[in-house]
Amino acid sequence: MKKVKIGLIGFGTIGSGVVRVLRAKRAYLRDKTGVDLIISRICDKDLKTKRQVKVSRNILTKSISKVLYDPEIDIVVELMGGIRPARDIILEALRSGKHVVTANKALLAESGGKIFDLANSLGLCVGFEASVGGGVPIIRALKEGFVANKIDLIYGIINGTSNFILSKMADDACDFKSALKIAQDRGYAEKDPYLDISGGDSGHKLSVLALLGFGVPVPPKDIYTEGITDIELSDIQYARELGYEIKLLAIAKRAGQSVELRVHPTLISRNHLLANVKGVYNAVFIKGDLIGENLFFGEGAGAAATSSAVVSDIVAISKCLHSGAKNEKCICFKKDVGDVKKMDDIRTRFYIRFSAIDKPGVLARISGILGKHDISIASVSQKERKTAKVVPIVMMTHEARERDMARALKEIDALTSIKKKTVKVRVEG
Amino acid sequence: MKKVKIGLIGFGTIGSGVVRVLRAKRAYLRDKTGVDLIISRICDKDLKTKRQVKVSRNILTKSISKVLYDPEIDIVVELMGGIRPARDIILEALRSGKHVVTANKALLAESGGKIFDLANSLGLCVGFEASVGGGVPIIRALKEGFVANKIDLIYGIINGTSNFILSKMADDACDFKSALKIAQDRGYAEKDPYLDISGGDSGHKLSVLALLGFGVPVPPKDIYTEGITDIELSDIQYARELGYEIKLLAIAKRAGQSVELRVHPTLISRNHLLANVKGVYNAVFIKGDLIGENLFFGEGAGAAATSSAVVSDIVAISKCLHSGAKNEKCICFKKDVGDVKKMDDIRTRFYIRFSAIDKPGVLARISGILGKHDISIASVSQKERKTAKVVPIVMMTHEARERDMARALKEIDALTSIKKKTVKVRVEG
Repeated sequence: MKKVKIGLIGFGTIGSGVVRVLRAKRAYLRDKTGVDLIISRICDKDLKTKRQVKVSRNILTKSISKVLYDPEIDIVVELMGGIRPARDIILEALRSGKHVVTANKALLAESGGKIFDLANSLGLCVGFEASVGGGVPIIRALKEGFVANKIDLIYGIINGTSNFILSKMADDACDFKSALKIAQDRGYAEKDPYLDISGGDSGHKLSVLALLGFGVPVPPKDIYTEGITDIELSDIQYARELGYEIKLLAIAKRAGQSVELRVHPTLISRNHLLANVKGVYNAVFIKGDLIGENLFFGEGAGAAATSSAVVSDIVAISKCLHSGAKNEKCICFKKDVGDVKKMDDIRTRFYIRFSAIDKPGVLARISGILGKHDISIASVSQKERKTAKVVPIVMMTHEARERDMARALKEIDALTSIKKKTVKVRVEG
Repeated sequence: MKKVKIGLIGFGTIGSGVVRVLRAKRAYLRDKTGVDLIISRICDKDLKTKRQVKVSRNILTKSISKVLYDPEIDIVVELMGGIRPARDIILEALRSGKHVVTANKALLAESGGKIFDLANSLGLCVGFEASVGGGVPIIRALKEGFVANKIDLIYGIINGTSNFILSKMADDACDFKSALKIAQDRGYAEKDPYLDISGGDSGHKLSVLALLGFGVPVPPKDIYTEGITDIELSDIQYARELGYEIKLLAIAKRAGQSVELRVHPTLISRNHLLANVKGVYNAVFIKGDLIGENLFFGEGAGAAATSSAVVSDIVAISKCLHSGAKNEKCICFKKDVGDVKKMDDIRTRFYIRFSAIDKPGVLARISGILGKHDISIASVSQKERKTAKVVPIVMMTHEARERDMARALKEIDALTSIKKKTVKVRVEG
C-alpha cells in the first residue's frame, strides 16, 4: 500500500474541513484509490483556537520549515490564503520537490504564471480545483474535459455572496443594504464584505479561468471590475419587466484575435440558464467549438464543498505518485488569443436608467446625445414619477461601444434636467 | 517529443469526428500537452462509403488484428458500438497491452465490471467519458472531482431524443407521434427510435453512472426501465397546471443501505433546475455529502461534442504515458451500498390520471380502493369532459409503495366505470 504524506499549511475553516474529510474518509479513499493518505504535519501560527476537529499535538507546528523541508512529505496543501507569505511558501515547497494543492485564487491570479512555470519545469503538480467554484469541478473540466476545445466564452456567477444579495433584493424587494445585512447575519458575507461586493473576488477567479480557457495570464488589476453596490432595487425590477435578471458576471469572451475580460453586474435574459441561479450558488457557463454550450452549477463555497475539491486534487496527485509518474507536465496552457481587449473598445448592449426632470423635451435631448455618440435605442419607457418631479427613464440600447457610452453619459449627466448620476448596466446573453 | 499512436476501430459518424478533431487540433494539443497524437490505423468493415474527413489509404484497414497486434499502437479507440464483437475487441486490446477509449455505453453497462477489472489488473486505462452525456465531463467529475463524496443521488436527463420529444410536446402542444416525427426529420431520432424512447439508452447510461457513483455493477436488465411512449399531451398539460414538467429521468438514489436504480418519465417541480432542460440537451444532477447539489448541463450527443470527450480521454492517457506512469489503477470503484432495491418496495409520490365515466360515486370508489391499499391522496381534480361521458380525473398522491400502487390500479382498472388503462407517472424532487 502506497502511503502519501500531506503537510497542511493553514488550519482555519477550510483547513479543518480538509482534515476532517481526510480522516473520516481515509479507509474509503484507500479502498477506492489504493493510496493511503496521511496528514503528517499541520502548520498554523495560531495553535490555541479550538478547531472543529481534534488532532494530535505531535503533528501541529508553528514552523513552516517543518512542512517545507520534511523529506517525508509528498504534498504541501496551502490553505492560509493571501498573497504573502503564501506565494513564497508555495514556490519554496516546489523547490523542495513537493507537489502543491492550493485554494488561493488571489495568489494564482497574481502569480499563477510563475508558480505553474516552476512546477512544470520541476515535473511537479499544482492542484487548484478549490480556487474557483468551490465543490464544482470546473478547473478539471477546463483543464482536461475540454482540452480539445477552442473556448469561445466563459460566463461565471462565481461569487456566492454577491449572488445571494442580488437574489435577495429581487425576491424580497429589499434594498442593497438590507440584503447585505441578511447575508452577513447568515454568514454568507464577511463583516468587511468589500472583496465580494466590489467584484474583486470574481476578478481573481476570472483570472484563473482565463488562464485555463485562453492561456493568458492576466493579473486582476488588468481586468475591468465593477461591483454590485450601485445596483438599486428599481433596476432589478425594471430589468425583470424587460425579461432580464441582474447577475454579477465574470466574463471571458473571445472577440476576434483578442479576449474580453470583465466583471460587472449584467442583465441576462430570463431564458438563459444563468438567470435561474439563485442564492449563494455558483454557476459557470462555457461555450466551446466542440462541446457547444455547457453549464456547471453547485456550491461555490463552504468548508465541505471546498474540502471536496482540495481532496480531489490530493487524490489525483497521489494516484500519479502511486503510478510512478515522473516529470508530468501537469498544467498545460496554450495562449490562443492575442491581447486582452481594451475596455473602451468593447461593445455590448446596455440598460440605462436616467433620473430626469419631468418636463417636455428631456427625452429628445437625451436621445439626441445618444445618437450623436452612435448609440441606438432599442426600447424606452418612462416610468411613473417616484420622487417629486424626477422620473426614471429606462432604455435598452443596441450594441454600443464603451467609450461612446461613457462620453454620452458624461454629456447627459451634465444636463440640468438630469438629477442623479445615470445608471448603466451591460447586457449579455 | 513523445509520440502516442492511436488505432481507431469504427469509422462512422463519431469515428470521423474524432479523426477530424485529432487532425485539426494536432499542433494545438501538442503545444498544450507535450504529446504528439498520431492516428496510425483506422479499421472499419466498410471502407467505401465517403466520410466527412479524408484519410490516407495506407492507414485504413478492414483487419481488426492490424490494430490489436500492432506493437506501435498505444491506445485503441473503440467506436463501433454494440456488444459483440466490441466486447471481445476491447478485452483483447487490453490483453495486448493497449489502453482503451470507448463511447460504448451498452457494452459498459453489460460488461463494464469485467473490462475494468482486466484493465486494472494489467495497469491499463479505459477512458469512457463519451459514454454518458456526450461532451459533458460527467464521468471525470464522478471519478475524480467528487472522489471524496458519498453520492446520495443522481438524476439524469441523459437521452436527448426523449427530452426533445417531451419538450416539443409541451411547447408545441402536439402529441407523441408528431413530436417523434419532427425529431426524426431533424436527425435527433433514429428511423427505429426504440432504444431511445423505450428508456433503454438511458438505462445503459444509468448503469455506468451507478457504477461510478455507488460502485455497483448492475446490468441493464436489472434496472427498472419505462419509456415515454405512453405519455400523452394531456398529462404534460395537467402536470404543468400542477407546477411540474415531465422528464424522462434516469435515477440512482441511495435509500438506506440499498440503492434505487430506475428510468421512467417523472414529474419534476418547475422550480427544479432539471425542469428547464429542454430540447436535445442533457443534464445530470448530483447530490453528494460534501458538494451538496451539483448540476452539469450540455450537449449529450453529436459528433463534435462526443469527439471532445473521446479526445479528452486520449489526451489524459497520453499524458500518463508521457509521464512514464506504470500500473496506474485507473478506475477505482468502491461498493458503498448493499443491493439494488426491489422496484416493488420503492416509495414515491405519484401523478395518476383515471379515465372514468362521469357518474356519481366513481370518485368515491377510486378513493376507497386507493385508501385500502395505503395510498393517500394529496390533491384531486376532475377535468372537464373531453370525450363522450369519459372524464379525466387527475390525482397527486403522497408517498406510496410501488407494489401497493400496482395492486390498487389493477383493482381500479377492473371497474366498469373506468374506460381506459390508468396512467401513472412518478414524482421526484
